[in-house]
Amino acid sequence: MKRVVLKISYLGTAYHGWQVQPNGITIQETMQNALEKMYKKRPDLTGCSRTDAGVHANEFYCHYDTDQEINERGIVLGLNALLPQDISVLDAKYVDSDFHVRYNAKGKNYIYKIYNKELKNPFISDRALHIARPLNIDKMNEFCKEICGTHDFYGFSSSGRTVTDTVRTIKECFVYKDGDEVILSVTADGFLYNMVRIITGTAIAVSDGIINPYDTKEILKSKERNRAGITVAPHGLYLNKVFY
Amino acid sequence: MKRVVLKISYLGTAYHGWQVQPNGITIQETMQNALEKMYKKRPDLTGCSRTDAGVHANEFYCHYDTDQEINERGIVLGLNALLPQDISVLDAKYVDSDFHVRYNAKGKNYIYKIYNKELKNPFISDRALHIARPLNIDKMNEFCKEICGTHDFYGFSSSGRTVTDTVRTIKECFVYKDGDEVILSVTADGFLYNMVRIITGTAIAVSDGIINPYDTKEILKSKERNRAGITVAPHGLYLNKVFY
Repeated sequence: MKRVVLKISYLGTAYHGWQVQPNGITIQETMQNALEKMYKKRPDLTGCSRTDAGVHANEFYCHYDTDQEINERGIVLGLNALLPQDISVLDAKYVDSDFHVRYNAKGKNYIYKIYNKELKNPFISDRALHIARPLNIDKMNEFCKEICGTHDFYGFSSSGRTVTDTVRTIKECFVYKDGDEVILSVTADGFLYNMVRIITGTAIAVSDGIINPYDTKEILKSKERNRAGITVAPHGLYLNKVFY
Repeated sequence: MKRVVLKISYLGTAYHGWQVQPNGITIQETMQNALEKMYKKRPDLTGCSRTDAGVHANEFYCHYDTDQEINERGIVLGLNALLPQDISVLDAKYVDSDFHVRYNAKGKNYIYKIYNKELKNPFISDRALHIARPLNIDKMNEFCKEICGTHDFYGFSSSGRTVTDTVRTIKECFVYKDGDEVILSVTADGFLYNMVRIITGTAIAVSDGIINPYDTKEILKSKERNRAGITVAPHGLYLNKVFY
């Protein structure tokens, strides 16, 4: 058996997230359907993360094992021909059989896109959150500095979390303007359930003057979910990079 | 009665074009639904052009008459709140009652977007045509120069055309690269049914070496539809500007 790692990219709008589930089409299932058509066998497929319904990925890794040797370029072109237009295979690589896309990930970078103009843009509506009022990027960056470092992010995660250790290290977090978009970028060794969406919701509350950025450490310490900002909608969130 | 002109923008993916029809939801109908909710009366609504199913508009104008005076900003914000995310009202203006969005249009600019990389991009798939092989922009521009001017475009239109006079004047036509996209821009006093999609299909055939750009005038003269290129898919086409 040989292990193959795929680098993929997808628009999450039409999917109920990565992970196979009974009540909706997922990216994992759609990928497995394409792999089954190519290999005439349905492989197990392990993803680097569980993205939620509506969340996108500029870069996402998954792996499977096979005893059929198709060359790497053949895998990329074959799967792309079999997949729908909203999922693309960017690369395929044979790796050592002990490599694991989730366990070997040293960190991840997520971005959250906000379209920050008064009138909505029909070409952006399922790819960024629309906020009509002007955002204060300097204030948002004050909060981003405070959230960096090693903290217990219990209060910045939702009740659906599946882990007990809620300490994570944010290596980098900042907000920048890109045309009409305001983008929050956050890099960490790992993320809790809804963590990026709550960090973004808190950064917006700081911009609006509802939360003081210098209360961030105290809010973290309190572990009270209701002291942080809201969980913003999934359609602005992108898994952007995975570090191995 | 006062006449209102709306400047709107829309993603055409979910619609069966502009014009109301029995078998699918259209932009005209969706706009009329929103107007009816705001005015408690369903106005007639005249569009500047009939875009086809799946075609987008960066800029599109329509007008209606009303005896209720809502201020211009109120019309914009009110309609945007009532419209779905893929249609945006950019502006509203009261105009003289003899102004007509179709008859007063002096010209239009369309663009056709091609995503020109080997692997598909899931974020572009319903907004640009994907062509994996490299396009020859210089050759496409040789064709664009030949197609400019006043010609009978009968052979560059489809059989669904509703007019008998098929002479039009192309004022400007050129192809340029924008990041990973190749964009064809064409400005004319008017367009026949499918004309931009056939011009783009012909430019691609010229790039591929199937059609000689210097045969363009002869192909025009022949009025034979099958001597021009194919009608490319609607999802790369944008009504980009309307000149009054």
